[in-house]
Amino acid sequence: MTLASLRLNKNADRRIKAGHLWIYSNEVDTKISPLKQYSVGQQVRVEASNGKVLGTAYLNPNTLICGRIISQNPDQLLDKSLLVHRIKIALGLRERVFPTPHYRLVYGESDQLPGLVVDRFGDVLSVQLNTAGMQALEEDILDALEKVLKPQAIVLRNDGGMRKLEGLEEETRVARGELPEEGVFLEENGVKFHVPVLTGQKTGWFYDHRMNRARMQQYCKGKKVLDLFSYVGGWGVQAAAAGAESVLCVDASAVALDEVEKNAELNGVADKVGTMQGDAFEALKQLVQEGEKFDVIVLDPPAFIKRRKDIKNGEQAYKRINQLAMRLLEKDAILISASCSMHLAYDRLIDIVRGSARHIDRQAQILEQGHQGADHPVHPTIVETAYLKSLIVRVYRD
Amino acid sequence: MTLASLRLNKNADRRIKAGHLWIYSNEVDTKISPLKQYSVGQQVRVEASNGKVLGTAYLNPNTLICGRIISQNPDQLLDKSLLVHRIKIALGLRERVFPTPHYRLVYGESDQLPGLVVDRFGDVLSVQLNTAGMQALEEDILDALEKVLKPQAIVLRNDGGMRKLEGLEEETRVARGELPEEGVFLEENGVKFHVPVLTGQKTGWFYDHRMNRARMQQYCKGKKVLDLFSYVGGWGVQAAAAGAESVLCVDASAVALDEVEKNAELNGVADKVGTMQGDAFEALKQLVQEGEKFDVIVLDPPAFIKRRKDIKNGEQAYKRINQLAMRLLEKDAILISASCSMHLAYDRLIDIVRGSARHIDRQAQILEQGHQGADHPVHPTIVETAYLKSLIVRVYRD
Repeated sequence: MTLASLRLNKNADRRIKAGHLWIYSNEVDTKISPLKQYSVGQQVRVEASNGKVLGTAYLNPNTLICGRIISQNPDQLLDKSLLVHRIKIALGLRERVFPTPHYRLVYGESDQLPGLVVDRFGDVLSVQLNTAGMQALEEDILDALEKVLKPQAIVLRNDGGMRKLEGLEEETRVARGELPEEGVFLEENGVKFHVPVLTGQKTGWFYDHRMNRARMQQYCKGKKVLDLFSYVGGWGVQAAAAGAESVLCVDASAVALDEVEKNAELNGVADKVGTMQGDAFEALKQLVQEGEKFDVIVLDPPAFIKRRKDIKNGEQAYKRINQLAMRLLEKDAILISASCSMHLAYDRLIDIVRGSARHIDRQAQILEQGHQGADHPVHPTIVETAYLKSLIVRVYRD
Repeated sequence: MTLASLRLNKNADRRIKAGHLWIYSNEVDTKISPLKQYSVGQQVRVEASNGKVLGTAYLNPNTLICGRIISQNPDQLLDKSLLVHRIKIALGLRERVFPTPHYRLVYGESDQLPGLVVDRFGDVLSVQLNTAGMQALEEDILDALEKVLKPQAIVLRNDGGMRKLEGLEEETRVARGELPEEGVFLEENGVKFHVPVLTGQKTGWFYDHRMNRARMQQYCKGKKVLDLFSYVGGWGVQAAAAGAESVLCVDASAVALDEVEKNAELNGVADKVGTMQGDAFEALKQLVQEGEKFDVIVLDPPAFIKRRKDIKNGEQAYKRINQLAMRLLEKDAILISASCSMHLAYDRLIDIVRGSARHIDRQAQILEQGHQGADHPVHPTIVETAYLKSLIVRVYRD
């Protein structure tokens, strides 16, 4: 089989040679290799402007990122065999780091599998095919996962935001095997959770904050904790399990708060965990009016900045919510201020927290700067693979 | 008592109002308040250019940073009473976070005590007075520490590099009480160490890497570990205690390596920990020649960049040592690459690691980005208080 070639413009090879995996459509020499000649998901050989082969890639001629590198080997296709190989490499890392089989098994580009995300909940896998290139390999991917892990079930959570850009349909289904009747569960930092694998957000769970939640536990014993944007209680239930005196979980979704209650029960801390349904901004205002105070507040909002052009408005939103949360803190208290917005620089978040403390005449000490866990490794050439921030801040009156 | 005033130039109040504690000599309105009129260590009221009082500060008219803010209260002097208050606030944080009384108790500016460093080893305190303002308060500081902590002994480690800039003599002595005959000990991440509190580097120990060493432990079980610039074995002995198959500690100081051996014995892992005396660069070259390979390499060099003008040469040194270390890694291995150079940006260290891996055709995954621990809080307005970096990187062949 002869591979078609894709020719890049002059200098467009530099980033690729440094290890980057993305080819932008304006980097393609469209005189030599017009994009419209390629099919969606097609695998090609990539050449520098001088014809030197850089490796292989899969394509989507209709998107801004029109190609993603598969290998630096000029003959290496992404097929079941390479998928098995790379899934095994990814698994090797996770088995080394985590005590139980609950983790992000494949984190796209960082695991040399661009566009593929797999979360593992023991014998159940939750998969996102985020690009047309990966969608074209659906059967091979499912086969490879079955070969390496022999899971009881594989769920496709093909309802992520990227799929629309790639021209793909949304779809959520059990693709292989059957889900266990008793439900899907995971353990994180010694605490058990039920995972709404078909109906929850993203793959059903956010493993990325594992380390940050572990660190939070150190600050919770005997304390009164507020968990904003709680979703199913990842932070809040772990705070209660770590010995918090009481925890209030706030979320807009009543379904998520039902899960919080179930998860609290699952860990024998139902008596400590309360819930409050509503918009987080409104809930904060209400709590301020009621004169409530907390020793630890966890602020883990959804991404307020989705695109570069939202930076200004998004930063304002982070500022507003951090300022509101500060007003609910006891005199010597802990704020855990997180952001999953890739476009929010870490320094900016620190400055937002600094300004918010200053605003109410409090001192702030940055105690810890958290990042995504080791099952979300950062690709050192692809800055977009680093997105998660979690500050642990002491806020006090001098 | 009437306080003398120090008048700032126009706009020089902005940084102070944002919470910064330093006044540079070129920010002083020397027509109204010539610096030579103040004595070394004198405490003054600080005024903006319009005469509005900003707070109090202590001075050293002979240094670039000629003043450090004490308080925003215009009448608040730094005396024994305020020292006791702020030491108690600092202690409150440490007692909340750490299970045993072994930590940096006071971290200068970040604890609103600019120029003062106190490390606690149980009943023994090791103190650095790094500015003339703090030196002038020596007796008050010792009194305040005795009042709050009732220690068995307080050691003055007044031999830091900053003292020369401040025009202060070097001095190391037991200033209060007596050191325990059996020696001074600490526990970190469950591992015991003897602390050379009078003769070791800095205060005798580096608490700043505590969290990073805790994270290292996760990667060491059953592995072959190399600890470069080991000093007394903070990393290496903890790796052995965490179940490493073998550990080799390399340091230029034979005295430090003696301590490594004692610390290994103290934790029952003497059979696993070897030592190698010599320059780290030379030792690496020798190990490469001998064909040695390791599963985990810890690279925690002294600051290669001490001043801004050393950045270029310093980065070259970091690059050289990272490249050398990479060559000693097994095919799927962990590099822990640290830097305590404040002037080395985190992104630069990531890029050095990326380039070093690329250089030998390996993939790199940044698994964890560590910082200094919570007993070295970062002052959100003073970037200089953040200096420590510790990358955990997986390096492998695809």
